[in-house]
Order: sequence, then structure tokens, then C-alpha cells
Amino acid sequence: VKVVKYDEMQCLISGLNFLLNRVPDEVFGYEGGMQSFADPHPYLLVNVGSGISFLRCISADKFERVMGSAIGGATFWGLVRSMTKVRDYDEAMKLAMAGNSDSVNMTVGDIYGGDYPSFSLPRNMTASFFGKVRSLTPLSLLIESPSNAVLFMVSNNIGQLTYLTAQKYGIEKIYFSGNFLRGNEIAMQALHRAITFWSGGKMRSCFLRHEGHFGALGAFLLHNGFTGEDIA
Amino acid sequence: VKVVKYDEMQCLISGLNFLLNRVPDEVFGYEGGMQSFADPHPYLLVNVGSGISFLRCISADKFERVMGSAIGGATFWGLVRSMTKVRDYDEAMKLAMAGNSDSVNMTVGDIYGGDYPSFSLPRNMTASFFGKVRSLTPLSLLIESPSNAVLFMVSNNIGQLTYLTAQKYGIEKIYFSGNFLRGNEIAMQALHRAITFWSGGKMRSCFLRHEGHFGALGAFLLHNGFTGEDIA
Repeated sequence: VKVVKYDEMQCLISGLNFLLNRVPDEVFGYEGGMQSFADPHPYLLVNVGSGISFLRCISADKFERVMGSAIGGATFWGLVRSMTKVRDYDEAMKLAMAGNSDSVNMTVGDIYGGDYPSFSLPRNMTASFFGKVRSLTPLSLLIESPSNAVLFMVSNNIGQLTYLTAQKYGIEKIYFSGNFLRGNEIAMQALHRAITFWSGGKMRSCFLRHEGHFGALGAFLLHNGFTGEDIA
Repeated sequence: VKVVKYDEMQCLISGLNFLLNRVPDEVFGYEGGMQSFADPHPYLLVNVGSGISFLRCISADKFERVMGSAIGGATFWGLVRSMTKVRDYDEAMKLAMAGNSDSVNMTVGDIYGGDYPSFSLPRNMTASFFGKVRSLTPLSLLIESPSNAVLFMVSNNIGQLTYLTAQKYGIEKIYFSGNFLRGNEIAMQALHRAITFWSGGKMRSCFLRHEGHFGALGAFLLHNGFTGEDIA
């Protein structure tokens, strides 16, 4: 067997563009269906792996990595494991889905007794992740709720960094990819809400049906001599 | 005793401006001394409390809260407590100072076997906070290193959000405040490095000698009828 190396992000984008241009229902929004775009460019591709890469995709042949974050999928798993001693990623995700982070996170209302009107902050907005833990006895910390809080914290932070990065480059279309998102309703909802909230509804968050297959498909295409123009 | 309420952020900024204009050595940079500015405006004030507030200070009388993050000082303490069962904030900070997060965090080199040259990512850059935990046995997780990793993670994330927010408004001068930073070398270093790295050295991170006293001073000034113009 001969191993040939291709750039990870180039593979990811080639596979994604190939499917975006050929599969009518590849893209979906968190709230219901979403029409396809004649040309998806320019878009921001946010790849949620162990860490996060933000790729500005200008055209079929032109992209650049414009931002990154080390708070990603592996951070969720590593933090949950450090807190709960759970030994399996799927188990950590199941815990997180079952939990309710209200007992762990501090809201605007918890701090100010209600809304903070001079800054238009509603009382139910999260003000501090894990902000309630200091006043809880360790025994009262069920493992579900901290896991849920970590999942929400990581996802919300990705959403905020995405908004700021997309805004910097004047991009309104965002594709989220990465195995971390597959079937992960809490993460998708948090990303969708963060983008909608920060952008005032101007930016659109898109998710992908063939999540997890773009890289392999892209490597196949590149190995067979396809170029960005062939794919588009 | 009659309690009179003043806006928290208005107090903070009034106290800060009063000292900025009167105390020659109030401001310091992470690396050595820093000259004072004839007029500090415009600046971004980043207040690190339980959560984070980013305040765009345009003039002595004009400021707005332009961004926020719920990953702040209480998140550090809450996460460390959830992982280690430490019962005291100072103890958590001592643990974090003694730890080395290299055993917990994953670097670019851990993932790619070296630098990732196509994106200019050096091998020693953190790629995923807590990314190594999945391959460690729970028993091998000493409490110092996860605490150190949480402190670095929270601080670095604040630095990145600060850079993106300051850039959005074209601000190059950043003041960091909040009790979380008092004597917190790891946080100050992480903030300074993040700002310098992301801005390519264009933005300046400033810290403050009378950290923790701005709010009280501002409340006193406002209660005694001082205005932004008096303070400036």
C-alpha cells in the first residue's frame, strides 16, 4: 500500500464543494428546510474537530484559514472526562443531552436580580458558565448537568467566534462541519442561536447532511486529478 | 443606612478614568513599563468578572457595552472545583499556578507530527484544550495540570474575543480590569500574548495597578456629583 498525503483542509473543502454543487438537499438550517444557493461562495467554513478551524472560502479554487480556536470537540470530551470519569465519548454525549445546565451556570438574573436593562441583557441569558458551582456542595453536582454545561459552553463559544470572524470578512453564509456536530442537537441549536443573536438575524448558519464524509471524498477527487474548477 | 444604586459599569469607568488622568504609573504592560497617554480614548475596557464585559469607551462621557462572554473568572473556579473538589478559590489558583497543562492540552505537533506549514501553525501552539485527556487514564490526571489548563483556556479565549472585538471597532488600546487578574501572572501573560499574536503586535494590552478599586471610587465620584468632564 502506498500512502499519498493531501492537505486536510483542501480535501475537506473539495469534498464539500463537490456535494454542495450536486446534492440538492445537502444543506439544512437548524429551523426547518433551507433553499440551496446557485453559488455558495463566499462562505465561512467552520470545521469543528478537536479544535476549530475557520476557513474563508472565496471561490472554488481559493480559500484561507483566517482564525482558529483550541476550544473544540476534544475540549468537551476532555473536560467531561476530567469531571465525571466517564470513559466513553458517546456516554459523555448522552450525559450532556440528559443534563440541565441551569443548576450550574449563572444567568443575568442570578447576578442582577432581573434583566440588566441599561445593556439590554435579558434575565435568562447565561452570564457565567459554571458560575453557580462555587455556591454548591460538591455532592450536589450531578454529572449530567456539568456535562450539559460544558457542551453548551463549547458550542456557544464557537458560535460567538464564528460571528466575529464572519463579520470581519463581511460573510453572511456559514457552513458548520465536523463530526462533533453529527446528530448533536444541543450544539447545532447553540450555534444557530448564537449566530442569529449576535448578527441580528443577518447571518445564516448551515449544516450538512453528509457530515463526516467530505474529507475522504475530497481526497479521492484530488487524487484523481480533479481541480476546484471541475468540482464547481 | 440609605442605599443608593449606581450603574456598575458607569462606576467602573468613572473610577478608571479618574485614576488614568491622575496617577502617572496607573497603567502597566505585561512586558516592562509603559508610558502614559495624553488622552486614553478611545479604548476597549475588558472587565473580567464572573463573565466578561467588553466596553467601548469613546470619550469621558460616552461608552457602550459592545460584547460579552460567559466564560470568565467564575468559569475557571467552577470548572476547577467540578474537577478537583477544591473548596477554596485561592487554593484553585495556587493549583493552577503550580500545574503544567502540556500533559492535558494537545498541540499542533501532537496532531500533525510537527508544524502545519500550509497555515503557518507552529508545532507548540495549543490546538485543543484538554485534547489529550481522552488518551490518559483518569488516575494519571493530577489536579494541578487540569487547573492550569482551565486557567490558560479561559484567559486565552478572553484574549481572542478581545482582539476580534477591538478590531471590529478599530481600537488599538485595551485595558483589562477585574479582580480575576490581580496578581494572576498566567492570565496576564496569556492575554498579552493572545493580543500580540492575533493583532501582529499592533494592539497594546494594558493592566492597572489599582485593580479592584475602580468601581468603589467611581460610585463615590458619581454620588458626589462628578461628571465625565470633571473626571477627564
